[in-house]
Amino acid sequence: MTVPYHHQVATSKPHLILKLLFRWKGSVWKSVLVEYLIWIVSYFIIYAIYRYALPKYNQKSLEEFIRFCDKSLGFIPLNFMLSFFVTTVVNRWTVMFTNLGLIDNVALFTAQYVQGDDARGRMFRRNIVRYCCLAHAILLRDVSMKIRRRFPTIDSMVPAGFMMPHELEKYESIKNRYNKSWVPLNWALSLLNIAKEEGRVDSEYLEYAVATEIRNLRANMITIWQHDWVSIPVLYPQVVFAATYIYFILALFARQFIIPQDQLSGEVDLHFPIISSITFIIYVGWMKVAMALLNPFGEDDDDFDCNFLLDRNLTVLFPELD
Amino acid sequence: MTVPYHHQVATSKPHLILKLLFRWKGSVWKSVLVEYLIWIVSYFIIYAIYRYALPKYNQKSLEEFIRFCDKSLGFIPLNFMLSFFVTTVVNRWTVMFTNLGLIDNVALFTAQYVQGDDARGRMFRRNIVRYCCLAHAILLRDVSMKIRRRFPTIDSMVPAGFMMPHELEKYESIKNRYNKSWVPLNWALSLLNIAKEEGRVDSEYLEYAVATEIRNLRANMITIWQHDWVSIPVLYPQVVFAATYIYFILALFARQFIIPQDQLSGEVDLHFPIISSITFIIYVGWMKVAMALLNPFGEDDDDFDCNFLLDRNLTVLFPELD
Amino acid sequence: MTVPYHHQVATSKPHLILKLLFRWKGSVWKSVLVEYLIWIVSYFIIYAIYRYALPKYNQKSLEEFIRFCDKSLGFIPLNFMLSFFVTTVVNRWTVMFTNLGLIDNVALFTAQYVQGDDARGRMFRRNIVRYCCLAHAILLRDVSMKIRRRFPTIDSMVPAGFMMPHELEKYESIKNRYNKSWVPLNWALSLLNIAKEEGRVDSEYLEYAVATEIRNLRANMITIWQHDWVSIPVLYPQVVFAATYIYFILALFARQFIIPQDQLSGEVDLHFPIISSITFIIYVGWMKVAMALLNPFGEDDDDFDCNFLLDRNLTVLFPELD
Amino acid sequence: MTVPYHHQVATSKPHLILKLLFRWKGSVWKSVLVEYLIWIVSYFIIYAIYRYALPKYNQKSLEEFIRFCDKSLGFIPLNFMLSFFVTTVVNRWTVMFTNLGLIDNVALFTAQYVQGDDARGRMFRRNIVRYCCLAHAILLRDVSMKIRRRFPTIDSMVPAGFMMPHELEKYESIKNRYNKSWVPLNWALSLLNIAKEEGRVDSEYLEYAVATEIRNLRANMITIWQHDWVSIPVLYPQVVFAATYIYFILALFARQFIIPQDQLSGEVDLHFPIISSITFIIYVGWMKVAMALLNPFGEDDDDFDCNFLLDRNLTVLFPELD
Amino acid sequence: MTVPYHHQVATSKPHLILKLLFRWKGSVWKSVLVEYLIWIVSYFIIYAIYRYALPKYNQKSLEEFIRFCDKSLGFIPLNFMLSFFVTTVVNRWTVMFTNLGLIDNVALFTAQYVQGDDARGRMFRRNIVRYCCLAHAILLRDVSMKIRRRFPTIDSMVPAGFMMPHELEKYESIKNRYNKSWVPLNWALSLLNIAKEEGRVDSEYLEYAVATEIRNLRANMITIWQHDWVSIPVLYPQVVFAATYIYFILALFARQFIIPQDQLSGEVDLHFPIISSITFIIYVGWMKVAMALLNPFGEDDDDFDCNFLLDRNLTVLFPELD
Repeated sequence: MTVPYHHQVATSKPHLILKLLFRWKGSVWKSVLVEYLIWIVSYFIIYAIYRYALPKYNQKSLEEFIRFCDKSLGFIPLNFMLSFFVTTVVNRWTVMFTNLGLIDNVALFTAQYVQGDDARGRMFRRNIVRYCCLAHAILLRDVSMKIRRRFPTIDSMVPAGFMMPHELEKYESIKNRYNKSWVPLNWALSLLNIAKEEGRVDSEYLEYAVATEIRNLRANMITIWQHDWVSIPVLYPQVVFAATYIYFILALFARQFIIPQDQLSGEVDLHFPIISSITFIIYVGWMKVAMALLNPFGEDDDDFDCNFLLDRNLTVLFPELD
Repeated sequence: MTVPYHHQVATSKPHLILKLLFRWKGSVWKSVLVEYLIWIVSYFIIYAIYRYALPKYNQKSLEEFIRFCDKSLGFIPLNFMLSFFVTTVVNRWTVMFTNLGLIDNVALFTAQYVQGDDARGRMFRRNIVRYCCLAHAILLRDVSMKIRRRFPTIDSMVPAGFMMPHELEKYESIKNRYNKSWVPLNWALSLLNIAKEEGRVDSEYLEYAVATEIRNLRANMITIWQHDWVSIPVLYPQVVFAATYIYFILALFARQFIIPQDQLSGEVDLHFPIISSITFIIYVGWMKVAMALLNPFGEDDDDFDCNFLLDRNLTVLFPELD
Repeated sequence: MTVPYHHQVATSKPHLILKLLFRWKGSVWKSVLVEYLIWIVSYFIIYAIYRYALPKYNQKSLEEFIRFCDKSLGFIPLNFMLSFFVTTVVNRWTVMFTNLGLIDNVALFTAQYVQGDDARGRMFRRNIVRYCCLAHAILLRDVSMKIRRRFPTIDSMVPAGFMMPHELEKYESIKNRYNKSWVPLNWALSLLNIAKEEGRVDSEYLEYAVATEIRNLRANMITIWQHDWVSIPVLYPQVVFAATYIYFILALFARQFIIPQDQLSGEVDLHFPIISSITFIIYVGWMKVAMALLNPFGEDDDDFDCNFLLDRNLTVLFPELD
Repeated sequence: MTVPYHHQVATSKPHLILKLLFRWKGSVWKSVLVEYLIWIVSYFIIYAIYRYALPKYNQKSLEEFIRFCDKSLGFIPLNFMLSFFVTTVVNRWTVMFTNLGLIDNVALFTAQYVQGDDARGRMFRRNIVRYCCLAHAILLRDVSMKIRRRFPTIDSMVPAGFMMPHELEKYESIKNRYNKSWVPLNWALSLLNIAKEEGRVDSEYLEYAVATEIRNLRANMITIWQHDWVSIPVLYPQVVFAATYIYFILALFARQFIIPQDQLSGEVDLHFPIISSITFIIYVGWMKVAMALLNPFGEDDDDFDCNFLLDRNLTVLFPELD
Repeated sequence: MTVPYHHQVATSKPHLILKLLFRWKGSVWKSVLVEYLIWIVSYFIIYAIYRYALPKYNQKSLEEFIRFCDKSLGFIPLNFMLSFFVTTVVNRWTVMFTNLGLIDNVALFTAQYVQGDDARGRMFRRNIVRYCCLAHAILLRDVSMKIRRRFPTIDSMVPAGFMMPHELEKYESIKNRYNKSWVPLNWALSLLNIAKEEGRVDSEYLEYAVATEIRNLRANMITIWQHDWVSIPVLYPQVVFAATYIYFILALFARQFIIPQDQLSGEVDLHFPIISSITFIIYVGWMKVAMALLNPFGEDDDDFDCNFLLDRNLTVLFPELD
């Protein structure tokens, strides 16, 4: 579920921001915790080896290596890579999120233009909208982990009310190895056609108005499917994530405090790498933004709440139709 | 209310810019004031401890720590994070602001295509547009703090003229735990249908023209609702705001002037951190841009003036209909 | 008037670029002139005080301050702020400029679908298009300084041929404290309706085709109005412009040449701050780009030439209608 | 084929990221391998010359040159060029990818509005959709290497089922030296016209609905064609790629370890350029992102899988039509 | 002509990239050649003056100035300015390029909906499409240098087959000092109207379908015209190009090698400014990207090939109409 916090930032007062910073669910703190623990433990292993295990001569060599790493770390363009990659991923995420598919427009026009206060009229309206919900659910099953877990098989959609048993049969009689989410949309259009022929839709003009909304829903669904099919080429995230990890592996050495030669050298020996820990959390947290948004249909705290969406579509829309 | 200043920048003459800089309402100065006071007081507490409370030996250690902080501060990529995050937030804000929902197009076509100079004709036109205003107001109640305060309950919309008492009853008879802003739009479409049947709309083609505008309004409203529902994942603002705060907490130490050892060292001892204050105001002010725009329906000086919008829609549009 | 220079950059030959650089009208040189003069005079006042007015001891303190400023100037992220802010402003400017509202499409379809070669047919076509021009002019009066000066009152539109005296009366009889630019568009639609009833428009379908173009014009006009209503929150330009000004106030000190102690120090003493002048012109010129584009309806050399637009719309379109 | 990895980033757990990093197919490691081997071999050739082949005096000169290169390398703005160029290329790639052309909407409306359960009705529907697939395939032949190899001549489309032999004749009778992908779309529209005349399409309104979808497909196809016709001006990738290559040619010298003068100098002598290797992989990998996306219809691992698309369009759509 | 190179980057193999780098036509090497020669000659003039013409004392002053320039060069934010400006220009270029105006959609629908296999039917179809091509050509004459040279007067369009002599007369009888590209579009619509009246277009609905495509072409043309009318305010390119030129004028001094005082100083004296030459080519090449794209209708190697477009439109479309 996306973690809502808009009301916390209604004003930009400092105390509200503090509350925002100290959330746990979906937070940057939670997402970097494991990595940070691994990093800090590794840091202290190297710390112990350097200070207590190494003979004097090797210590010197290691110090030279530490200084060299420290100087060279700046060559890795982490800033640029992370900021541009995050922006690219956010843009992609925005496209997906604006195409998530609210079925409201279909429902608005179905309610209006498929007429008849009798049971049959209601049946037409309800089924057209339900078929859209069903198509949506079938698509999301292929895209979203959460929906896949909720509906491990197509059969499991029947008890949830998305599908009737006889529809399931009809659905499964169509053999095709690709996603079949278009099938219920065809049913919806056929139903609309029958309603038209029974005189429940005033004219083909209004029929087309409803059909256009169904087409728009399909366009939304195809956009989602396309973005699931063609990911950002794998070498882009690879190079960015690899740069981040390598940076901090080098930092394990580069950020070691060198034992001050004498009191006057002015070098500080803090033992605990406080600044490097902060840097670690900030950079890795930043990378996690990209990761969390790369597959917004996954299972992170902040991924799209497709279950909510499916339920809302069914619940909001049905009263509209009566 | 968004603070208007366009006429102040009609030309880019220097004196106009100065006037722009010294505004208070909605200004960067106002927004960073509290944070700056806290920061400067903390600065002088550390200043006092360092200079007067610490024994010589600890002073030396602190100085080492100060130098270390000063050197390490550059590792926090504040520039990159703030500039990219602000851009992302501005883009999102732009989408919301272009979908705020002006009901003008609905009114234009209603005025034109729902005919009849008699009272009933006027009633049709006025009610269709009023229902759109009502739907808009119901949505904004869920999104905007200010509208929520203006209309703490749905009932309070009746005296404001958005709703009739009998409509309120009808509205509340619909049970649904999600936002019901679609209800008045359905009413508007039904009314349009009746007008059509009474021969006040020339053809279904023109009816559809009006209906399309109502649908577009709904699409606008859904965009607003979606952006309220799915925020930018919380870890993105968290990591940016945390970086900013941590930067300035470290700066409390890093920017302390070290007591010059001797007259020749060339180190300056200004006591008051003038440059750091400037930096603080600029960076925190920049962060406040992101905060102010993150929830544009909040209560900052510069948030959208939804009350103005609702009132304007009602006022501008009604004469158009007669 | 936007300053045209496209034909100067037809190829990227060096001599063409030089010609481009040495233009004066709308140029960066013209826009930074006043600020630069103030800055350079201030620079030499401080120069004189430092070199001739201060006693030896204070001179030393000032030098320390100069060195400190020089070192600290890098903390102000001018690069990032200006580049991102300019990009945001350019995007906004682009949206405004593509919505400036050419009435060509209205004219194209009016000419085609409102038929009749007699005087009355011409009257219909001319008036529909003139009303659109009028609506456009009324809107621009509220937005653009130049149009406001050209038409200080609504009355002054009558002699300019945008409005007939009897239309002025009708216009002023509508009481409304908001912008009334929608009024002439309603007139245009009414006229279209009458033409339809007189059989001069073949069908409601074609009537709607014309009406849709009028609606699109209105959508353009509303976009302009919205962008005038909701500016970029004032704290964003404030923080950017303040950063720029503060940077150069500090530079007044930081860029002073320190009197070389002895011949061997290797410090240069150029007296005239040539590099800093260049930096000043570049940075402040960059800031001026943002300023000039922030309100493109102002009176800078490069702001939109709305007068040209209004005249062109009237002139280009009328022959098209006969 | 685009390499799918979305399910690997369903959550942002560390072990999933490691799995992502160690993929080979389409990976950054695979793409930089050849270049890296050439670079590292060159590095060791220079290493050998410097250490073993050069006389003392020339060694000194070379060391000066190495130090000079090391200092100057920072003048090449690789960060800026790569990050902005990659973003520009990614945006272009996104446009192409969203216009790849799914024929689903054509099929949806053809299935619905071209009626008749008899063989002739099915023939109409199947052929209209097949003609769209054919037009798509002809276009992609000109754009994509893979499709060109699959269909080296137009003739080879006949056995693949995209074309009938008599259609091939008709197609080749049209003489034109430009891409003829519009021909089958004309056929599709003609067929639609005939279906209309036979009463299989209810009205011209619905015929237009189908025709609009065919037009949209053509718009998609033209977008692809346009992007293939007008590349990003060649000097942009040239300057970026040249900068990257020159950077690493200089790095061959700049990153040589200088033989420490004495033990106390503190200079490290690692022999193997570990940090520079990392930098090489990251920067060249980053450049490869731009290269891989510059022509997404090429033969990289991550280029669009046009074969899949063509097959899917044929397979998914045909059951929909029966 | 845009220089095609897509097939060269079908894969990202190293040897392909080398081939890309060593192209000459439209290349960065060609575009910076003149500037580079001027720069390098100036460099050696200063070199000669510094080393051979100046007395010892002035040499010392110059060296101080060189060191000062070297230090100060970093104050010019060339990286930021070029990268953001290039991105802005690329975006603008993309808009122009996607609105170049392919007349395909007009032809597709004209071929379909303007019926009749006789000569008169063909005449209608051919003329409607030819008028669109003509309108396009008249617009491009005003925008593109190349088209202007091809058609120095409107008369010269007659032999090229875009216009008939009697049409030229009609065209010139319309007095108007603005671009008259709308005239042939009006003719096309009139012709369409006549075809409708003769029963060659089935209904006004289909007439409108064709008219809509003509309107879309006009919208494309207006977009091109608008972008030609309103350039990016001249002070933006001025400030960017000025910064680049000033940078390299300063570099003439800053990048001089200082004559090493003694053998031990470790300063290198390469005589030829190899790194600075590389930097020059990269930065000025980058600037040339902006220049080449600023006016894509100019005469650079990489500007839009409008002649090709006009010819293609005439050639591709005519067979489609028979």
